[in-house]
Amino acid sequence: MAADIGYLFEPRSIAVIGASQDPVKIGYRLVHNILTSGYSGNVYPVNPAGGEVQGLQAYRQIEDIEAQVDMVCTVIPAKHVLGSVESCARKGVKYNLIISSGFSETGNVEEEKKIAGHARRHGMRIVGPNIFGLYSAEASLDATFGPGNILPGNVAIVTQSGALGLAMIGKTAVENIGLSAIVSVGNKCDIDETDLLEYLTRQERTKVILMYIEGIKNGEKFIKAVKAATTKKPVIVIKSGRSERGAVAAASHTGSLAGSDEIVDALLTQHGVMRAESIRDAFNWCKFLAQAPPPGNEKSIIITNGGGVGVMATDACEQYGIGLYDDSAALKQMFSEIIPDFGSAKNPIDITGGATSRDYDKALGAALDKREIGAGMALYCETAVFDAENLQNVLEKNFRRYARQGKPVVFVTVGGENVEECMARLNKKSVPVFGDVYEAVACLGKLFDYHRYLNSRAETFEDIAIDSDAVDRIAFQALQQNRYFLLAHEARKVMDIIGIPVPAGHIARTIEDAVTSAEKIGYPVVMKVVSKDIIHKSDAGGVALDICSKEEVMDAYQVIIRNCRVYKPDAILDGIEIGEMLPKDVETIVGARRDPVFGPLIMFGLGGIYVEVMKDVVFRALPLARSQIMDMIKQTRSYPLLLGVRGEDRKDMESLINVIIKIGALLRKCTAIADIEINPLMVYEQGLGAKAVDVRILLSHT
Amino acid sequence: MAADIGYLFEPRSIAVIGASQDPVKIGYRLVHNILTSGYSGNVYPVNPAGGEVQGLQAYRQIEDIEAQVDMVCTVIPAKHVLGSVESCARKGVKYNLIISSGFSETGNVEEEKKIAGHARRHGMRIVGPNIFGLYSAEASLDATFGPGNILPGNVAIVTQSGALGLAMIGKTAVENIGLSAIVSVGNKCDIDETDLLEYLTRQERTKVILMYIEGIKNGEKFIKAVKAATTKKPVIVIKSGRSERGAVAAASHTGSLAGSDEIVDALLTQHGVMRAESIRDAFNWCKFLAQAPPPGNEKSIIITNGGGVGVMATDACEQYGIGLYDDSAALKQMFSEIIPDFGSAKNPIDITGGATSRDYDKALGAALDKREIGAGMALYCETAVFDAENLQNVLEKNFRRYARQGKPVVFVTVGGENVEECMARLNKKSVPVFGDVYEAVACLGKLFDYHRYLNSRAETFEDIAIDSDAVDRIAFQALQQNRYFLLAHEARKVMDIIGIPVPAGHIARTIEDAVTSAEKIGYPVVMKVVSKDIIHKSDAGGVALDICSKEEVMDAYQVIIRNCRVYKPDAILDGIEIGEMLPKDVETIVGARRDPVFGPLIMFGLGGIYVEVMKDVVFRALPLARSQIMDMIKQTRSYPLLLGVRGEDRKDMESLINVIIKIGALLRKCTAIADIEINPLMVYEQGLGAKAVDVRILLSHT
Repeated sequence: MAADIGYLFEPRSIAVIGASQDPVKIGYRLVHNILTSGYSGNVYPVNPAGGEVQGLQAYRQIEDIEAQVDMVCTVIPAKHVLGSVESCARKGVKYNLIISSGFSETGNVEEEKKIAGHARRHGMRIVGPNIFGLYSAEASLDATFGPGNILPGNVAIVTQSGALGLAMIGKTAVENIGLSAIVSVGNKCDIDETDLLEYLTRQERTKVILMYIEGIKNGEKFIKAVKAATTKKPVIVIKSGRSERGAVAAASHTGSLAGSDEIVDALLTQHGVMRAESIRDAFNWCKFLAQAPPPGNEKSIIITNGGGVGVMATDACEQYGIGLYDDSAALKQMFSEIIPDFGSAKNPIDITGGATSRDYDKALGAALDKREIGAGMALYCETAVFDAENLQNVLEKNFRRYARQGKPVVFVTVGGENVEECMARLNKKSVPVFGDVYEAVACLGKLFDYHRYLNSRAETFEDIAIDSDAVDRIAFQALQQNRYFLLAHEARKVMDIIGIPVPAGHIARTIEDAVTSAEKIGYPVVMKVVSKDIIHKSDAGGVALDICSKEEVMDAYQVIIRNCRVYKPDAILDGIEIGEMLPKDVETIVGARRDPVFGPLIMFGLGGIYVEVMKDVVFRALPLARSQIMDMIKQTRSYPLLLGVRGEDRKDMESLINVIIKIGALLRKCTAIADIEINPLMVYEQGLGAKAVDVRILLSHT
Repeated sequence: MAADIGYLFEPRSIAVIGASQDPVKIGYRLVHNILTSGYSGNVYPVNPAGGEVQGLQAYRQIEDIEAQVDMVCTVIPAKHVLGSVESCARKGVKYNLIISSGFSETGNVEEEKKIAGHARRHGMRIVGPNIFGLYSAEASLDATFGPGNILPGNVAIVTQSGALGLAMIGKTAVENIGLSAIVSVGNKCDIDETDLLEYLTRQERTKVILMYIEGIKNGEKFIKAVKAATTKKPVIVIKSGRSERGAVAAASHTGSLAGSDEIVDALLTQHGVMRAESIRDAFNWCKFLAQAPPPGNEKSIIITNGGGVGVMATDACEQYGIGLYDDSAALKQMFSEIIPDFGSAKNPIDITGGATSRDYDKALGAALDKREIGAGMALYCETAVFDAENLQNVLEKNFRRYARQGKPVVFVTVGGENVEECMARLNKKSVPVFGDVYEAVACLGKLFDYHRYLNSRAETFEDIAIDSDAVDRIAFQALQQNRYFLLAHEARKVMDIIGIPVPAGHIARTIEDAVTSAEKIGYPVVMKVVSKDIIHKSDAGGVALDICSKEEVMDAYQVIIRNCRVYKPDAILDGIEIGEMLPKDVETIVGARRDPVFGPLIMFGLGGIYVEVMKDVVFRALPLARSQIMDMIKQTRSYPLLLGVRGEDRKDMESLINVIIKIGALLRKCTAIADIEINPLMVYEQGLGAKAVDVRILLSHT
């Protein structure tokens, strides 16, 4: 029975194995940080030399401690760690933070496995090895060897990179970002980011979660945790290794597979995660999202004393998907008293360079007090009438007021030393003010994205009944022949079972049979020889297209037979396939597969040359709601083709969505299937359906 | 005869019209800044009240000054400006900076025109109105009403936004960006950004030019100046109003047309300009490019003490087009002594979190002293062994050393207060250090972009002789009929003149004629009735496709005549057009036009559905070199289609390029032509050429 993860963040007692009196040692720094961070539990330094460590009695070994030890920090050389872990297990320690390095990250995989195995068998959980420790505001506990002076707050950070994590500790303090927790996961021999994410999702103090990730081990579990987390609070992820070369560097650095970045990106977006590229963006978003109320509505206002920054903010709003309020009559009324003649009563509202802090204050009030306006961007350029003190008060007052009223406002100030100091003082008071227009607008944009995600979240997924036994039987037969793919007629049978239309077809063995089939299918038809001995049917003269009448069928039948006899006299001819000649329309591609990292995925794209040349495909994790499938389709760049171009009618979107639902259900319910691809799926005009022209099904090796 | 623009940046004497003793007035601030900025020329305050202004004798009017006045700053109410301008002209003032606002930006267009006209007639140049003034390091002159304390240096800023410009003055000081000049252009009634750009290109002190632009008046002249500027020094442009709504805001703010952002973007890139979106990026690039030597070669190295930031930098290198050195044997040798076992000898080089400043120093030397490595990125995370003082020395020493050796190095430090202070101290010493990986790598990427541009610049453009008289005659005939477009056969004649193949075609008036034409063209052919009275030829039964033999031609001829007679008995039939039936291949689109803002432009894209749905087109300003045309083609997303997909051969790129050259020459040389579009231009396989299926030519209204 593993211990409650609460003991990791709120241990009642801690032992430091490798505690030291020598200030250059990590074992010193760690004890020092624990003692100075305000932790109220018991702290037990452990050092074979005994004596005193930083004023506390040091124990020679953990067994010497009489009281219960909830958590241990291990900072001894790698070779001694296994022995120490065994002692800790005997002592009944709940959590062991193995800070020591020299394990799988340097190729020493075996030792790490032994440690993890022993701990697991004895119910002790391990964080690490190869970590910098943990900070938990809940327990006022800094059990890291970082620089100390962590500002408590409500942003939690989980990081796979130790050095970056340590540097982030310092940087959060500089940027005035208060932390609820920071943990490094290191080699993740036991506890991983998913475990931490689950806990941080529940933990009330944490308002925003920031994760730095290089590789994900169990993506399906991670994505499930992410999905649960984003329903409660914003999650920001920096996932590095997005470039091919970066992925190689990440693999060599952490020994973990990064997973296809395209898929990671699609799944994070699908589940409402905000993906940041740079630390700057991630920190900005944390700062803003940790305090911002949900927007009142989708209509925002820009108030500025500089036309230039107003234009830049307008551009940025388009980029980050922020809608602007633009009822010009209402705007004119709102600002009639505040804006001098030469300003603009259009949004962005330019109160001009002559505006004082008071004008600024009035303008903010005039707009944000109105119900019609849901959020604000206030941009301030240092001008000749700049007055730092009043401006600071105006910004702080308005920020707090509209935070209470549930209207997010983002501030930008551009200027010199005085402006910088004003900005710094406000940030110290947790009023987020930015020095760059795009960065500020991005923060508000992310807030909108997040709340749009919350509002659009589908609670019910499309599910349909499938005769999975029938499909399994087909798959099982193939597997019995040691074949890991289905033959064309088997794949076609699977399509029949789940009700996806395929082109009509029949294998004729006589001329009469061929004619009957063709008449049943309807002209024109395609005729192809069926023979295991003839691979290149066209070369053999074994194919006839665009056959339009009974006579042509009879002619073609004989010509094909004759051609094939000449081409390969000993070939066994099984018959001639009579197939429907499909009209062309929009070629799409629908695929589904079990990803080794992320589990069942579905893919949609415009087929043919679009998928080959333009790589215009979109991925999603299954299951999906109908509306989510529609969103997925809309996300392709070539989506307009489905709406009909050049005067064509709209295509049969309903049928397309149904195919996607069925393929998704097939993959999820028939575990023998590993990979399905329909390419092309021909989608016809509204009411005329869609047909799976070519279907490829691969089976699982497991 | 207009005065040398040198007098604007190095005036020997300045009068301030509207000089004031009242510290809240702009006229006070301006005189104060001029007097405290170290300007050594004569300063004459002008104020109708006379007396003293800031210790100087004030003149009641400019005529009272006996000495020559090179420059005047005008800070009086709008209504008095014209009179003052007249006095200044009489006095022989060379440059008048009209700071006063209340002119075209508020709709007062007439007054501004009068001022500009008067000045032009009297050889006085005007900057503004509606500006904040000018700073020139060359003359130690701060003639702005900004915050003062401008740091002299080698970045020149030209801004269309006054408030933003003023705020940037302060921000450059905070960010330790030294300025050679900052000028606001305001309403540009005379001097515009192009004039300033031309001067700053010549001015030795200026190493980098940053422009904030909302609208461009004479784009062709501007682009010419930009092209000349980028051959001498990096030019960074923030062009706002890129979104539709932003463009509207910009227009309402400055009264100038923004021009299509897509085209602005294409032309800036074409001429080596770096376009920044945010002020943050622009300032970062200025800081770095103002001092960075050209890269030694395209192979860079990343050195880091934190694997995580190393991976991020690798991702960023891909994003910003930086190549990494990856001879692993050579790397192993370079770093064998420096890197402990557990580090990575792959690039990024991870010297691990235990590395000291000394290790850092050694690692930098080990890599950057090698000829094979052209540039470096040094990333430092604050760790337990962090030592601010030594690190600072290491960074500064290496920065200066490799700047001398001609190897650009960009530094990143991530951490807390100590790291921030170290970074600030270095920046004060003009050693650029960044706090974010992506921002730093972007700077180096821009440096590479710029030097790649310099190296690839084409000195000679493709030019070909065209019988422009023959084309002009066709155009002239149409214009005489008050027709501003060419008819199909006229457009075809133009194609013949410049040698662009069109499908073969002939109008037959007898059956025999039709047969002869068809045999000459070669089967299959297309036949279409020619009659001004029959618009919808297909409806009339006047079209026959895929005609394959003499007999079919004869049959079709009679059928078409009969059908048309039945369809419209009184129609005059001019004959039957026998046309080549073109095989399908890659459809492209080639267009050229005279843009009202930017002059002659050429456009290329993949045609048909690609241009309609994917908007996959690229623009360039003319003229172009052959290699630039190739680059343009390669920039389309669907370019792989021209290389041949699905086993097809490569298409006839030579023919395509020739068509583009000819269309470009046609537009440039035949001024009667305003707009040409070939859509589609069918491009066949290598050696088979390209054919202009449909050609549309519009004529100029001027």
